[in-house]
Amino acid sequence: MSKLPNIGTSIFTIMSKMAAEHDAINLSQGFPNFPVDTVLTDIVARLAKENVHQYLPMAGYPPLLSNIALLVKKSYYRIILPENEILVTAGATQGIFTTIQALVQANDEVVILDPSYDCYEVPILLCNAKPVRVSLNDDYTPNWNTIENACSAKTRMIIINNPHNPTGKILTQSDFEALESILDKYPDIIVLSDEVYEYITFEEKHISAHTRSKLFNRCVMVSSFGKSFHVTGWKIGYLVAPEHLMKEIKKVHQFMVFSVNSLCQVAISEYLDVVSVDGIAKLYQEKRDYFRELLATSRFKLLPCEGTYFQVASYEAISSENDIDFCKKLITEYGVAAIPISTFYENGKDLHLIRFCFAKDNATLEKAAQRLCKI
Amino acid sequence: MSKLPNIGTSIFTIMSKMAAEHDAINLSQGFPNFPVDTVLTDIVARLAKENVHQYLPMAGYPPLLSNIALLVKKSYYRIILPENEILVTAGATQGIFTTIQALVQANDEVVILDPSYDCYEVPILLCNAKPVRVSLNDDYTPNWNTIENACSAKTRMIIINNPHNPTGKILTQSDFEALESILDKYPDIIVLSDEVYEYITFEEKHISAHTRSKLFNRCVMVSSFGKSFHVTGWKIGYLVAPEHLMKEIKKVHQFMVFSVNSLCQVAISEYLDVVSVDGIAKLYQEKRDYFRELLATSRFKLLPCEGTYFQVASYEAISSENDIDFCKKLITEYGVAAIPISTFYENGKDLHLIRFCFAKDNATLEKAAQRLCKI
Ligand SMILES: CSCCC(=O)C(=O)O
Ligand SMILES: CSCCC(=O)C(=O)O
Repeated sequence: MSKLPNIGTSIFTIMSKMAAEHDAINLSQGFPNFPVDTVLTDIVARLAKENVHQYLPMAGYPPLLSNIALLVKKSYYRIILPENEILVTAGATQGIFTTIQALVQANDEVVILDPSYDCYEVPILLCNAKPVRVSLNDDYTPNWNTIENACSAKTRMIIINNPHNPTGKILTQSDFEALESILDKYPDIIVLSDEVYEYITFEEKHISAHTRSKLFNRCVMVSSFGKSFHVTGWKIGYLVAPEHLMKEIKKVHQFMVFSVNSLCQVAISEYLDVVSVDGIAKLYQEKRDYFRELLATSRFKLLPCEGTYFQVASYEAISSENDIDFCKKLITEYGVAAIPISTFYENGKDLHLIRFCFAKDNATLEKAAQRLCKI
Repeated sequence: MSKLPNIGTSIFTIMSKMAAEHDAINLSQGFPNFPVDTVLTDIVARLAKENVHQYLPMAGYPPLLSNIALLVKKSYYRIILPENEILVTAGATQGIFTTIQALVQANDEVVILDPSYDCYEVPILLCNAKPVRVSLNDDYTPNWNTIENACSAKTRMIIINNPHNPTGKILTQSDFEALESILDKYPDIIVLSDEVYEYITFEEKHISAHTRSKLFNRCVMVSSFGKSFHVTGWKIGYLVAPEHLMKEIKKVHQFMVFSVNSLCQVAISEYLDVVSVDGIAKLYQEKRDYFRELLATSRFKLLPCEGTYFQVASYEAISSENDIDFCKKLITEYGVAAIPISTFYENGKDLHLIRFCFAKDNATLEKAAQRLCKI
């Protein structure tokens, strides 16, 4: 019998495959289609000829750990110890899986906020623990009362995703205060903070969970160089966590992957020596604004987008079909692939919303918008 | 409380770190120190400039899956289906972790043969399953009677490692027949066959588990391009398994890493278009023979080595210290790092044996041997 009888193929795989089969413009799975910075690819091309092809240390390439500590320090109230509080992972997904496996025990409960990205549930189920799904408010802000009501002595972890995939929402100072007051009541709860889009926020400033003095000691922050540097295929992410949690996480990491791709770790470390993360938000803010402008005359209604490279849109004015069928038709009849938002809910709640990825070159966005405006 | 109270830092990390601190010749952790084939590094340098930096499909880069199918087919009685029966993993370690997580349930038992490599136990413990350790015979052949006696209705998996790390033993035709007759009696047992050194065997031919018609349908074979192509840091491995098992494994893989480093996957795929795996055994056989010759006048007694790039040696004639202390002294007083074999046993059984890695250029082997011959 299967350990995961209800788990199928991820919606991102399904939609990307269908997009390829129908030669549709792929705004479904989140990845950039514009060229990577040549400064970074030049580094890789040079490193290919150097001695960077053997195992790096288990926790990560030491200069990369130091560079991550510097990056993280920027907004932080104390120094992060590279060797003890940072771990390089084979993508953020592996960081999340490792963290849950290391810290969640059988029969524990883990609070997940719906709609939510799809990679949290399986590692929880594999721990024989229980995902407890709590819906966000209609405007996708967290409902801290409902979240508090979902917590109990059984709760081991609350997973937050900030900026939020798929809705682009970011958490405010008062959200963190509300979260912290829940944590005050439950000393055993830790927070897993998925911040893979941390550098992609627009009008409002992103607040990283580990920069909150009340949270640092109880939180594991996950980030992704794939997202920040437009190299999603490299699968290089990292965790920031206090030593007492990191110690447990490393025990699992050591036997889950042992270490992470050496060539790309060294490349990112050298890139961090010369690049700043400051331009990332501006790049994507321009893309967001351009994509929204292009769709202004369409019949799609665009929801607000505070961060991430995703734009959620309602097709209520166009069709009453369910969102999965609508996305399929969008591919086959209109040549554009998107993600149906119902797949981010445990119960498949369908609000006639779909998600477009705007991490694309302008020509792609223009061509997609042209098609979408005809519907 | 920790989920893994008895798990510490892996011996490979400890010894490599100590070697670096004392500037010792590192024959401990298994990795080559000679340059990677320039055909392969030229491919990487070229690919860095191409569009290979975004997510590849979840199961792997399709041309790589096809090339692996061709590689595997060589010795096999039927065609392997690239899309359904092969999975590219972030190193063999991740392949092993994913397989165990997907197929082993709480309270299941998993048979492990001691001495054994260290990455099998933790994924079993994290499933709330039980590792059942069975000792190999004194000559490191499996004792199939003891193994059969360790099996019961609770047994879900037997893990074999062929060629065997650390002893270099390889399994014979009659070993497989004995294994198959156990499986006949226990229809629910599957075999996890760790064959990361599959191309590194010497006088005897390696038999891959999945090429046995009675085993294919009940076995997951793990291999490693890191080992075969001298790029241990790339962390690219693969699994071969029948579809009914692979379906479950992919459910976990999808949420453990989603996909594997794109740049290195494409590079290995292109390399497989032009390279043969036939030369690997010869390269390492020459190294084995040279290293043994260099140590012939030493006081170490060398055990037989049928495969892998490891040479086990007894220091009984030199010291009566335990093997961990002896290895530390070897680093600090003689400038050579090795791995104590007791760490491959659950109960730390100490036979005064240590393991040298001979995947090194000749100058390194000579310098190490010079030091070792002085002891
Ligand atoms: C790992 S595939 C999904 C990529 C992604 O982050 C998304 O599209 O939401
Ligand atoms: C993953 S570090 C250990 C490398 C290895 O396979 C060994 O030395 O046995």
